[in-house]
Amino acid sequence: MGPMDFSTGTTNPETFPTEDLADAAVHAIRECGEELNTYPGNLGHGGLRSLMVKRELDREGVAINPERMMLTNGSMQAVTLVAETFCKGRDDIVVMEEYSYAGTIDAYRSLGIEMVGVPLDDQGMKMDALANTLARLEKETRPPRFIYTLPTYQNPTGTVMSRERRIELLRLAREYSIIVVEDNCYGDVHFEASPKPPALYALDDGPNQIYMCSLSKIFAPGVRLGYLTASSNELFDQILARRHDAGPNTLAAAITARYLEDNLWEHCERANVGLKERRDAMLDALELELGNLCSWSHPSGGLFIWVQVPDEVDLERLEALASECEVSFAFGWEFHIDATGGPFIRLAFGWSTVMDIYEGIARLARCIEQVLARSCDVG
Amino acid sequence: MGPMDFSTGTTNPETFPTEDLADAAVHAIRECGEELNTYPGNLGHGGLRSLMVKRELDREGVAINPERMMLTNGSMQAVTLVAETFCKGRDDIVVMEEYSYAGTIDAYRSLGIEMVGVPLDDQGMKMDALANTLARLEKETRPPRFIYTLPTYQNPTGTVMSRERRIELLRLAREYSIIVVEDNCYGDVHFEASPKPPALYALDDGPNQIYMCSLSKIFAPGVRLGYLTASSNELFDQILARRHDAGPNTLAAAITARYLEDNLWEHCERANVGLKERRDAMLDALELELGNLCSWSHPSGGLFIWVQVPDEVDLERLEALASECEVSFAFGWEFHIDATGGPFIRLAFGWSTVMDIYEGIARLARCIEQVLARSCDVG
Repeated sequence: MGPMDFSTGTTNPETFPTEDLADAAVHAIRECGEELNTYPGNLGHGGLRSLMVKRELDREGVAINPERMMLTNGSMQAVTLVAETFCKGRDDIVVMEEYSYAGTIDAYRSLGIEMVGVPLDDQGMKMDALANTLARLEKETRPPRFIYTLPTYQNPTGTVMSRERRIELLRLAREYSIIVVEDNCYGDVHFEASPKPPALYALDDGPNQIYMCSLSKIFAPGVRLGYLTASSNELFDQILARRHDAGPNTLAAAITARYLEDNLWEHCERANVGLKERRDAMLDALELELGNLCSWSHPSGGLFIWVQVPDEVDLERLEALASECEVSFAFGWEFHIDATGGPFIRLAFGWSTVMDIYEGIARLARCIEQVLARSCDVG
Repeated sequence: MGPMDFSTGTTNPETFPTEDLADAAVHAIRECGEELNTYPGNLGHGGLRSLMVKRELDREGVAINPERMMLTNGSMQAVTLVAETFCKGRDDIVVMEEYSYAGTIDAYRSLGIEMVGVPLDDQGMKMDALANTLARLEKETRPPRFIYTLPTYQNPTGTVMSRERRIELLRLAREYSIIVVEDNCYGDVHFEASPKPPALYALDDGPNQIYMCSLSKIFAPGVRLGYLTASSNELFDQILARRHDAGPNTLAAAITARYLEDNLWEHCERANVGLKERRDAMLDALELELGNLCSWSHPSGGLFIWVQVPDEVDLERLEALASECEVSFAFGWEFHIDATGGPFIRLAFGWSTVMDIYEGIARLARCIEQVLARSCDVG
């Protein structure tokens, strides 16, 4: 068996609707041949925006104005645009979960942003810590430009911020007049019937909410389609003014809209069933192979399991050994704002078949056991 | 007859290969279903990069390393990435043609870049003026970050920089150790058999060349596909490190590559025949309607005719009247680095049918005549 890849938050190719998408492409191209010969404008394809308005209405019960939604090149362009808009100086401060999406951390670091981390537990960002952080920054007259958070199926930890904490976060943001930037890219990837708390933007009617979401996790990252909205024209127009790419992709948006338009939630349901099977297999394999050595999250959604390995595991040695054994995954430090952090690894379960998941976790277990045996020898 | 739109550099929907593209989409989606479920990486779809390497090899005789080419969201993302990479301070200076692409000017202005303009004549950027500008900036110890130029079918003037001037520009850039950023988005849109001068990057083997090109003008702006390369790894890697959008669109790139792969130059030839017909119609209509009042460029490529109207024409009044008469076009000030400039308008001929071109130019002529008659009345 070849390499086992648990490294990236990819979707499940087994449930990808290749033939239906090909069919949608034929219709979409016939419908929008003329539109393809023009520039899309800064907001992008109207059909896909309408569909994403419906997605938000169905999930959150909030009717977003489609003229206040812009399509982006994945939600990563939204992350970057927001940072570029509000962090124009050097050493601008952003408050965020201390473990967060590596793409966001890399972008912020490259833009010279100072990231101030708030610890998480199994209910998401800790609100006492957030309150202390905001109070301290105010005392130092170093107000943050915004709070960036992944409240639902947080990457990498998989946690869901509780409703109480969401309300407390919004209260603190109002108290300090801080913009809240909510990244909900995993919001519709869930495996349990239990209801999720509402999105932050759906719990607040103030002017300081920025919300971004994506089709990468419910459909496919290769279509590079995300979107952004804001609760006030002022914020939205500032972000729009920072956009200089002559608009998002019409061809990809038209094809994706055509495929999903009568089919959005059925598609998500099918994809989630496939992902749940893989999540369950990975949880089972972890129990079988590492039950006596490690502990891990039991995520009710998203694409990742967050594993705590024993403190004694030399992570650099584990990395080298895993590479030899052809099993790949991500290390906790890749998601830490200071590139440090504890003895964690992140396993992505979207890409691999159930059989490969069992094989890959067995390899991982052998690697961890070998590293531990070596550390005992040395000790 | 409805509104006549000569405002934007769109392609010709009449020669757009709707059915062939739909067919290519079916094949591309079947071929890359699995690839769509992963992230594209910062360089983007390998097939389209190979094809664009071939495009450059065929046109310029230069073999670009495909690992040193990145696909971008149209060439506008390339324009913005380069500016963000090399202009990190406020008031960084860029030297450029004093009339240039409005999208570039807007992006530079938004990024706080100081644009220093060099006048053009019918051979493109004037080299004596460039030499004086560079000498002056050096004396003021305000070195420019780069020279940005559209040497071929310049937007908005349509001029082609002569080979002699290209060589002189490269000599000056070497003398002052300045990066040259060449925007060749119109490079393959041409209507005459006469050979064009080589691209700047093909005339220089130094490390300071950045080159960007696009599929927007030879294929369709709605596919949002451009590309960028640089003559040294150092420059290329700096630009790549500034990219934070998780990569370009796989779906659009795969479909476009599949359509163009056996068909690139045949497609361009067909599109150019259609555009030439429209350019010829517009030149003829201008001669018929405005021959005694205005003068204009006779572009051998690109998508625009640059018209000089009489000095007496009140441009604001012309704008209002044209809007009433439902004929739209762009004004010279939109392309001037200081948003000023002389009595010019830019007419785009790609979008409209030949019949609409005659009708639209007749309307434009009536508007100009009316504005002139009014100015005589007042005078």
